[in-house]
Amino acid sequence: MERKLAMMGGSYNVKGFPFRIQERVVSQSEQFASDNYSGVCPQAWKAMEAANRMDEPAYGEDSWTQKAADGLRTLFDTDCDVYFVFNGTAANSLALASIGQSFHSVICHELAHIETDECGGPEYASNGAKLLLGQGENGKLTPESIEHLVTKRTDIHYPKPKALSLTQATEVGTVYTSEELRVIRAVADHHKLNIHMDGARFANAVAALDVHPSEITWKAGVDVLCFSGTKNGLALGEAVVFFNRSLAEDFEWRCKQAGQLASKMRYISAPWCGLLEGDVWLENARHANACAQRLVEGLEGLPGIQLRYPRQVNGVFVEMPEPLQAALRAKGWRFYNFIGGSARLMCSWATTNEQVDRFLADVRALIG
Amino acid sequence: MERKLAMMGGSYNVKGFPFRIQERVVSQSEQFASDNYSGVCPQAWKAMEAANRMDEPAYGEDSWTQKAADGLRTLFDTDCDVYFVFNGTAANSLALASIGQSFHSVICHELAHIETDECGGPEYASNGAKLLLGQGENGKLTPESIEHLVTKRTDIHYPKPKALSLTQATEVGTVYTSEELRVIRAVADHHKLNIHMDGARFANAVAALDVHPSEITWKAGVDVLCFSGTKNGLALGEAVVFFNRSLAEDFEWRCKQAGQLASKMRYISAPWCGLLEGDVWLENARHANACAQRLVEGLEGLPGIQLRYPRQVNGVFVEMPEPLQAALRAKGWRFYNFIGGSARLMCSWATTNEQVDRFLADVRALIG
Amino acid sequence: MERKLAMMGGSYNVKGFPFRIQERVVSQSEQFASDNYSGVCPQAWKAMEAANRMDEPAYGEDSWTQKAADGLRTLFDTDCDVYFVFNGTAANSLALASIGQSFHSVICHELAHIETDECGGPEYASNGAKLLLGQGENGKLTPESIEHLVTKRTDIHYPKPKALSLTQATEVGTVYTSEELRVIRAVADHHKLNIHMDGARFANAVAALDVHPSEITWKAGVDVLCFSGTKNGLALGEAVVFFNRSLAEDFEWRCKQAGQLASKMRYISAPWCGLLEGDVWLENARHANACAQRLVEGLEGLPGIQLRYPRQVNGVFVEMPEPLQAALRAKGWRFYNFIGGSARLMCSWATTNEQVDRFLADVRALIG
Amino acid sequence: MERKLAMMGGSYNVKGFPFRIQERVVSQSEQFASDNYSGVCPQAWKAMEAANRMDEPAYGEDSWTQKAADGLRTLFDTDCDVYFVFNGTAANSLALASIGQSFHSVICHELAHIETDECGGPEYASNGAKLLLGQGENGKLTPESIEHLVTKRTDIHYPKPKALSLTQATEVGTVYTSEELRVIRAVADHHKLNIHMDGARFANAVAALDVHPSEITWKAGVDVLCFSGTKNGLALGEAVVFFNRSLAEDFEWRCKQAGQLASKMRYISAPWCGLLEGDVWLENARHANACAQRLVEGLEGLPGIQLRYPRQVNGVFVEMPEPLQAALRAKGWRFYNFIGGSARLMCSWATTNEQVDRFLADVRALIG
Repeated sequence: MERKLAMMGGSYNVKGFPFRIQERVVSQSEQFASDNYSGVCPQAWKAMEAANRMDEPAYGEDSWTQKAADGLRTLFDTDCDVYFVFNGTAANSLALASIGQSFHSVICHELAHIETDECGGPEYASNGAKLLLGQGENGKLTPESIEHLVTKRTDIHYPKPKALSLTQATEVGTVYTSEELRVIRAVADHHKLNIHMDGARFANAVAALDVHPSEITWKAGVDVLCFSGTKNGLALGEAVVFFNRSLAEDFEWRCKQAGQLASKMRYISAPWCGLLEGDVWLENARHANACAQRLVEGLEGLPGIQLRYPRQVNGVFVEMPEPLQAALRAKGWRFYNFIGGSARLMCSWATTNEQVDRFLADVRALIG
Repeated sequence: MERKLAMMGGSYNVKGFPFRIQERVVSQSEQFASDNYSGVCPQAWKAMEAANRMDEPAYGEDSWTQKAADGLRTLFDTDCDVYFVFNGTAANSLALASIGQSFHSVICHELAHIETDECGGPEYASNGAKLLLGQGENGKLTPESIEHLVTKRTDIHYPKPKALSLTQATEVGTVYTSEELRVIRAVADHHKLNIHMDGARFANAVAALDVHPSEITWKAGVDVLCFSGTKNGLALGEAVVFFNRSLAEDFEWRCKQAGQLASKMRYISAPWCGLLEGDVWLENARHANACAQRLVEGLEGLPGIQLRYPRQVNGVFVEMPEPLQAALRAKGWRFYNFIGGSARLMCSWATTNEQVDRFLADVRALIG
Repeated sequence: MERKLAMMGGSYNVKGFPFRIQERVVSQSEQFASDNYSGVCPQAWKAMEAANRMDEPAYGEDSWTQKAADGLRTLFDTDCDVYFVFNGTAANSLALASIGQSFHSVICHELAHIETDECGGPEYASNGAKLLLGQGENGKLTPESIEHLVTKRTDIHYPKPKALSLTQATEVGTVYTSEELRVIRAVADHHKLNIHMDGARFANAVAALDVHPSEITWKAGVDVLCFSGTKNGLALGEAVVFFNRSLAEDFEWRCKQAGQLASKMRYISAPWCGLLEGDVWLENARHANACAQRLVEGLEGLPGIQLRYPRQVNGVFVEMPEPLQAALRAKGWRFYNFIGGSARLMCSWATTNEQVDRFLADVRALIG
Repeated sequence: MERKLAMMGGSYNVKGFPFRIQERVVSQSEQFASDNYSGVCPQAWKAMEAANRMDEPAYGEDSWTQKAADGLRTLFDTDCDVYFVFNGTAANSLALASIGQSFHSVICHELAHIETDECGGPEYASNGAKLLLGQGENGKLTPESIEHLVTKRTDIHYPKPKALSLTQATEVGTVYTSEELRVIRAVADHHKLNIHMDGARFANAVAALDVHPSEITWKAGVDVLCFSGTKNGLALGEAVVFFNRSLAEDFEWRCKQAGQLASKMRYISAPWCGLLEGDVWLENARHANACAQRLVEGLEGLPGIQLRYPRQVNGVFVEMPEPLQAALRAKGWRFYNFIGGSARLMCSWATTNEQVDRFLADVRALIG
């Protein structure tokens, strides 16, 4: 995965000089780099403002946290256990650590974020669990691939599989249908695997599949979901939702020890209330998905340009000539290169149709 | 330490039902429980709003993070390395992990927060380093105590001391003078110990000592400081400041792996800019310290009431009869019990003189 | 604990020059330093020789390992799970890790070996669990002390107690009676704690109490025992015996990952067969205890000499004038200094009455 | 890797019933399963007997350990630091942990033992370091593959490569020449990687290459070597040899904490003296390699049989029809299946020509 090389971690890599970088001004309208470049959506901001009006007890004993947790239980229509942590690395790593021990293993797709972009976060939180890499088209694990990884070795020199991690939506912008999830659940049951769902873009998947959130989580046998608020329109804050509550035993201690217990937790939970009220989270996701679709429609049929993966959520992965990519960057457009140099165009709640159209116009002009 | 038992973690302890607690309304004016019950100060809020106006690169490559890091270098008047993490547990744990290995040990006071209230955070981040507990009056480690811990054992069955952790201000609201720090530094030099400073209330210590921040950090031989923004008026976000930059090698990878790299980092760094501009951080600290002093002056001389520790920063530790404490709580006042049942009255940037006076009036009325 | 400083770790402490030490000849007859200075007892050696006559499957699939494990099940008269690891640090650390998670805590006596002499082994294997230190006379935890540690804090900032570790016999050579163990078990039951027994000198305790091994283990509510073979007369090899078999789930993977799965396991298990056949383990322990008693009888009443702790197993802790200790060392006698400078005289299966008498004669001669 | 499935871990996998297996008698003459099925060679046994004649100080302060360490320094003709640990999992895992931190990565071949058969041991000892898998024919990493892994990502979301692990001889019985090692060292230098050598069969590699041990270690830029004694003819005990002594800082504490410090260390080090005196280690390796060659010569040209990898050390990897393998097993021959079902025939110091010839006769008879 060559991606991110160009733009990421630059400042970090100048050893000893973190954050010493030249000022970079990015106007809202010129980037498709990531949904985490966007800010806080108005409804979340409003809730945060409300939460800021008075003092509140710390460590989650405030009323906002209670309300947000209850809101998620209502959303999923089940009595799940809910915890809020700071970011996705922590949510995924701690959720996986709650499933297995250091000598167990986690099955995931070779393109899964937990394998490619967490810098060993899951291995660290679990004190050494290995990830076993499976395959499948469009970034989706196949039942056969899971079966193979669980059965090819059963000796003690090979870490025993305990968890299965699915990314919904996947790193390449595709989704698992509830039917696909049920088939995978059957394999998981057969081999006593708990299912973790990396929901960095869970909202976009729900919007794309047009299903009730329960249909692709607990009703499909998902044990724990990491539901991202950050990419959906918050400043930070992920919800770890345990549908299998036995896995959540003492999880609050795990969060505390790992540096994931916010003292002023209401600044995570209140914005979540903002997302949940009136299904803003879903609106944000639908909008981002629609912007991606608008990009696809504008790009389709242009010479030298073709989709690398089917567009299902808010990311568009498209093959375009290197010179064209360079010219677009020269015009100020920011986007990452992904596998094999294809361009990843990511939309968010903050993307606008005008921005999409400006980008398409530039592409057409450059192709001439 | 019986403290916190009464009020903390209540909701967490109902296993399997996190956050299921009865709504609790706490008006701003009725609590001295903790400086982390307070909200975000206006200047920090304003900066956060400004940062929310447009998209910005993620993972610290934004202009706000650069500005905040540069601001801290200017504040400390030295070319230090600066990183922002989510909370104090993480700041302390990761900073200590950067000093030693799993088989090393950290010397700290028996009342140090890293020992009493981090749920094994430092042991977790270091994969097993032990804390060696020293003594000293008023929560301050003595040079003799440090010397004793380093020299009493040198065999391999005892973890080798590598780090010395000082809390400034201490858990009992006292401060180390720059002279005291220099004496401790000499002991540390003699035994090749790096000094970590837990600055959960560093701002209050600077205000109390009325010194330049450099005087009680790098000029006194501190290698790494965890400077808390949360208790000073932010929603969240601590600065890990490496004066000894060799200890910061690859620290950004450590943060990433540990789930402490914020994608939308500007929501931590912009508020820091708000604190730094015009020395708001110092004003906030001075105000909190002054409120604590006002409490002391009002309580002194009242029958059955006496200070447990000298009041030096924003916390007042006072012995008062159990019935009086109960009566105050009945009137809606919230505060923690500390060592041996004394009351801990904590002030913050948000505490008001009126609030202090109301509390004092209630105390006097109850004593009758 | 100043102990070991004098003699231990010397070569290790010359950084970069491990094992560069001047030859030291210690005749069998001149040491009371430790039971791990002794060699392999004849019966264990004979079994090891037998095991060396032919090839055997690796990793515990050999006939000797099966026989040794069955032998321990017979000895304890219950269907326990048995594993063999290389040494005591590993046995204790891995057994404790199987009881709790990184954010849990282990209650033990402040003089427990796992606290004072494992260099953070338990913290390492558990990835950060803290040891909570209790008190009690003669190195034995009291029920009150346990109760206090479990109840004084229940908030999430304090690691949740999950395990109780008892050393049988203790570091100061005393033993818990089965009655004492049952009282402690009741406290453990009340607080849902699993009991780990550090049996570095378990054989000596059984010999001293003259009970069936089951009486002070599973019948007294011990969940897992680390039964030392090394100090009893093996070259190396401890048995981890799970009476509570649910704790042993996947323990073989834990051993493998931690580097505690011997490929040629028969060289640990065959000698164990040698110890078990004809109760050699018990004979060895009785002999060592008797030698210690002979020392006590010879020392009692001598001017300036008195027992520091009651002699119950194979160690004698005796206060003697520093000059006398120095003179004895000058005559070639080796022994450790323990708490507050008392001398620790440790006997083993290999100690002889003649050796004891020579030592006593030297003491008497020096006292004059 | 399907290997081991058939024969390994069987008893371990019956949860709750470790070591409950039916007796299996394996006559010395009927196995090519593994070099760790063999016993202790006479010279090592003799040294162990000598070491058992008297008491000795514990924890490596004995004369045997000094002698063995000095012997290894003499063998390698350099002033290296030497430590003895119990087994290969520990040797490799702790050596790698001494090179990097939890957020670093280790580059190794996709068939490396540390990746395929240590159950996450390196990840555990390092608290989360990832292994980056490279390719290369015959189980040998190519410089290009290393270069690719180091350069394809440099962002902080990808663990920073710090160590390069080479297996000498490889898992498929091939060796790196000193020339090949020097080319790899140049790549390592360019990217600041330290080189770890997994020497589970180092002796066999030295014998095969007919070079001085220094030629393929420190003179070729190897920083730390894990030199296996177990597979060469000991009961257990690996030497961790640091040529780059700065990496060995405080390594003795690391061993202690990890449960790898033997109290009666002489039972590891004395046998090593037996191997070193008169180059017994080399004789054992040459003999094993010669037996493998005898196998190859006898198998070559037989219908349906062909080598899977060039035979360079003591293992023969051969494709043979499944029915033939079954028939051989039915006759009592034991051997593992390796990648894609080929048979792995492993020879050791204890293998005899008669045994080889009996096997060949059976093969010929079965082929008819």
